[in-house]
Parts: sequence; C-alpha cells; structure tokens
Amino acid sequence: MATIDDVAKLAGVSIATVSRVFNNSPLVSEKARQKVLKAAEELGYKPSMPARSLAMKKTNTIGLIVPDISNLYYAEVVRGIEDVCNIYKYNITLCNADNKREKEFQYIEMLKNRWVDGIIFHCDYFSKEHYEIFKNGNIKVVLAGRTTKFDVPYVGIDNFKAAYDAVNYLISLGHKEIGIIHGPLDEMKETIDSVDRLRGYKQALIDNGLPIYDKFIKEANFKYKGGYNAAMEMLKGAMRPTAIFAISDIMAMGAINAVFDSGLSCPEDVSVMGFDNIDLSEATRPSLTTVSQPMYEIGAVAARMLIKMLNGEEIDEYQIILKHKIVVRNSCISPKK
Amino acid sequence: MATIDDVAKLAGVSIATVSRVFNNSPLVSEKARQKVLKAAEELGYKPSMPARSLAMKKTNTIGLIVPDISNLYYAEVVRGIEDVCNIYKYNITLCNADNKREKEFQYIEMLKNRWVDGIIFHCDYFSKEHYEIFKNGNIKVVLAGRTTKFDVPYVGIDNFKAAYDAVNYLISLGHKEIGIIHGPLDEMKETIDSVDRLRGYKQALIDNGLPIYDKFIKEANFKYKGGYNAAMEMLKGAMRPTAIFAISDIMAMGAINAVFDSGLSCPEDVSVMGFDNIDLSEATRPSLTTVSQPMYEIGAVAARMLIKMLNGEEIDEYQIILKHKIVVRNSCISPKK
Repeated sequence: MATIDDVAKLAGVSIATVSRVFNNSPLVSEKARQKVLKAAEELGYKPSMPARSLAMKKTNTIGLIVPDISNLYYAEVVRGIEDVCNIYKYNITLCNADNKREKEFQYIEMLKNRWVDGIIFHCDYFSKEHYEIFKNGNIKVVLAGRTTKFDVPYVGIDNFKAAYDAVNYLISLGHKEIGIIHGPLDEMKETIDSVDRLRGYKQALIDNGLPIYDKFIKEANFKYKGGYNAAMEMLKGAMRPTAIFAISDIMAMGAINAVFDSGLSCPEDVSVMGFDNIDLSEATRPSLTTVSQPMYEIGAVAARMLIKMLNGEEIDEYQIILKHKIVVRNSCISPKK
Repeated sequence: MATIDDVAKLAGVSIATVSRVFNNSPLVSEKARQKVLKAAEELGYKPSMPARSLAMKKTNTIGLIVPDISNLYYAEVVRGIEDVCNIYKYNITLCNADNKREKEFQYIEMLKNRWVDGIIFHCDYFSKEHYEIFKNGNIKVVLAGRTTKFDVPYVGIDNFKAAYDAVNYLISLGHKEIGIIHGPLDEMKETIDSVDRLRGYKQALIDNGLPIYDKFIKEANFKYKGGYNAAMEMLKGAMRPTAIFAISDIMAMGAINAVFDSGLSCPEDVSVMGFDNIDLSEATRPSLTTVSQPMYEIGAVAARMLIKMLNGEEIDEYQIILKHKIVVRNSCISPKK
C-alpha cells in the first residue's frame, strides 16, 4: 500500500504538503498540488486517517470510558452512543474502566495523548479530581448518565426524584415498611446514583410520615447475587418489609428469588420494585415493576451534544435531565392487611 | 498545545524529521536531533499518537466489530478483548454492526482507511465475500467466537460438538422427544452457530436411534421474546416435547416462562436447557442447566493472538477451539413415565 511518504518522495515535496493537498488547505501552490495529485494517482494512494489527523489536528474519534461493558445498562447506553457516532462518521475508542478510579485516570491520560477529539465519560462518581483533569487538560467532555454540581456538560436523569417517585408509588399501594437495596457508598466506590436514590427513598418516607428503619437499608454491588444476599438478610427475623425497592433491575431479580427462597411469595407477601427497565425486566416471574430510565437516549443525546461541541455548533442546554417513568408490571401489589 | 508543526518550524526541520526523532529512527543526524529536542522542550511539546502513527505506520489500535454490543454474550467477549488490549497498550475502536451484513462491510472499509493495525471480527457468518475483502486488503484479522473453513485465524468453540453433547445429556436423562430453538437460518442472516448446533442436535438424535420431528424444530432471534414465542408454539397441541434445548440462555429464559404459561411445570413436565452460561443463568427459576462457553477467554485469546501477529511473534496455532462444558443446574430432570 502506498503511503504518504511514497507520495511525498515521488512528488518531490514534503509530507506536510501532501497532507495539505488532501485536506484542501489553501497553503499549497497549484503547481505543488498538481505534482502531489499526479504522484498519488500513479501510486494508487488514498489519504489515511493518521495523515489527515496530523494535518487537521482532528482525529474524528471520540473516547468512551464506561465502568463495566458487560453490565446491561452500560451496554445499552453504548449502543446509543455508537449509533449517533456512526451517523456523524465519528469513531469510538472504547475503554472499560472495570469500576476502578485509577483505571479511569489512566484512560483519560491515554485518550488525551491519542488526540481524541473529545470524551464521553460514564463514571460512577465524578470527583473534583476528574473535573480538574478535564479542565486543566482542556479536554472536551460530556458525562453520560451522570449529573454533577461541577460546570461540566452532562446528560442524565434525576436520580433523587426517580427514587422518590418509586417509593411514593409503593406507599400509594399501602406499603409502610419498605426496604431499599442500594449500591456501594464507601469512599473509594461512592456512586452518586446510590447516594441520590437513597436520599430520594428517605425523603419519600419522611414526606409521608413513615419511619426509616436501618434494618431495611442494605448495600449491594449492582449484581444479581448481591441483590439476592441483601434481600435474604433483610427478610430474616420477625420484622421484615412488605416491599423492597432495589435500585437496579438485576439486583431486583436477585431480590425476587430471595423472597421465594425465604419461603415467602412475591408479590403476595413482599413486593419488589426495580430500576432501569432493561429488556429482561419483563422476563422475571412475576414481571418486574420498575423505574424506566432512557438508557439508549442518554447515550445518543450525550454523543450528539459532544459532536455539536466539536463542530462548534450552537447548544441550547449543556446539562440535560431526561425523563424517567414508573413502569407498572406484576411484582408490586398492595400489602396484606 | 504545541504541535509537531510548531516544533518543526522552531527547529527549522521538516515534520518528518520531528517524527523520526520521537520514534528513535536512525535516519536523523545528531545535529537535527538536538535541534528538535531543544525546540520540543522549549515549546512543551509531547509527541502525539497521530504523529507517531504517521512515522511508524502503526496506530496501536485494534478495530473490533461485533454484531450487538447490548447482547450479554458479546459484552462478555468484549470484556476479554478489552482487558488484553489494555495490558499490551492497544486501543480498541468499537464498531457495533447491529446484526447487519452491510454495516460490517462499511466498518471494515472504515477501519482499513483509519489504519488500524488489525481487526477482531465477531460476525454471525463469515462469508467468502468477507474472506476476500480481508485477503485482498491485506488486513490482519482474527475471528472471535467464529470458526470457518477459510484460511483465517480464529478462536471459537466446536458448536456442533457442544450441541451434540447437550442433546446427548438430555437423552441420557431419558428424554426421547426433544425440541430445539435455534437462531436465524435464512440466507441473509445465516449464522454458523445455528447451522452447526442444529446439525449437532440432529446427529445426536440419529446416533441414538431417535426420530427427528419438524414440529420440534423452531427458529427464533436470540432474544427473550423470540425464545418465549417459539416454545409456546412448540408446546401447543397434544404432541409436545419433554425437553427443549434453546441455543442461547436468553432464549431458554423465554422457554422456561413459556412452559409455565402453557400451564405446565419446568422441569417436571418439560426440561429446558440453555447455551452460553451467562451470569443470569443461575437467576432463572428453576436455575438453568446449560452449555458453558468460555466467553471472556474467547475474547482474551483472540486479542492475544492478534497482538502476537502484529508484533511478528511466533504463533503455534492459528485456529483455536476452546472447550465447552455442560453445567448441570435444576432445569433438566428425567421425564415422567
């Protein structure tokens, strides 16, 4: 395959000149342009992206950092990002941070060094450290599925309100003892989702004059087994909730099975509510009542916003909250008297 | 940010010379080298990947084409690829082909034009057309999760044998009427998985002297709903199988629910067996007996092989078959007399 080097040699010009010709730069004489085009044709040369990138200072590549690609929620967000990037001819460099803060920082540095045009960052927790890295590095970034108090563009949902609405729905069915299975809260793995959704849960109880019981608040890891174990724990002993709100559908799937394995029935003895509305939430028995968040749209809107930023297009709103909604299926009913 | 252009100008040399200095090329005089390094230091210039790529004709990027990133099977394969690429400092350009042959061809052309060093290709069906594109384009490729008769490196499992073993297992439990839910077989969407697994199913029946019933062979789309509908169809009427083998766990989840919705019990009336062994296969009730394929390893081994090819390292075997195994859980028992 002919390279830009070969063309430059044959045409007797510099590599930079060849680049300029193929990027329609005005800084080339007509004579040089003709020499380059003739040499390129002779050699069957097509300008490669690296050569174009170097000349244009633009790689048409977006870096994408996600915590865990094998999680159905993120996979769906990535599908939205991928579809929009495909339409606008942007490529994606995929980075799986494996839920590790340290790996996130490595990837940001690596993407910067590779001249991606911008980054879509899906993190569990957007810290001051993140903010400063992006700001000081002058890196264009949009957060997907994450809101923040920092002055950074994002597309997400209102996690506080979503959890508040979910718990209010359970209260409207007559539940007074409601448990929650949330995600990690410890310092290193702190997730804003968990913090906001837990706040929403508590506020809904408070606003309805209901007590908050420590025993009904359990931490898990967003996995099936974690949801299962947390629910088993909660259902032990005489005092148990009549409804459990798990802040992911996968954890809710674990909670439903824990209800059955505790010798109880779902939803007759214990209602279970999820969060996300993944495809499989209609596959559980009973099918899962859940909070739907627009996963595909979060990805698609974030990608569109970043591409607008890269093209210098006008943007009305840099911080976008998309709508959640309660999807009623069969896993939540009124409690027995 | 200082660019290679700025350095070349300040040092009074060509861009190519700057590139060569930062790639330790011997084709630069010591005097030019010193000038470039001094200019770079003065400007705070760090060599970017595009500049390095252009000089080295190597981008340290691997193109990855998968049919559907939101499918749990592919997400797990991608995790394996990503982990290995991270270790060897390769980036991944992710392409989601959306199960469309046409999009696959577009992506191959695009990746080639972007100078990726090689491609990991996960397709449903590797055709002669694919083969010729890679061969004529001189593109280094490894197929993940796909075997082929063509002379192309791959990492996969023996789908014929895996299905044969699964059906043999059901026969060993005493089943004689065994249904199969396979994937698409029509010309445009033909999947080798489906073809090979269907062959394995038939061969196991034949080798055990059992009849093959058309009514027990149903096509679906690898989704929950497709598996559900295919099983509902199969369970209609007087003649029904005592066991159903679905060639993906997600379709098996649909089949289990179809058994219950037909007024039957699983596994008492109808056993259901899956394929893949995704995380959630232990979350179904009953938990799913399935054929485990090493998804993460398929991705990891394919990535390692491609990187070896790119580095000119020795490779013992270009076509690797990884082992499957039967994972026995609770969804398959002996049929009622």
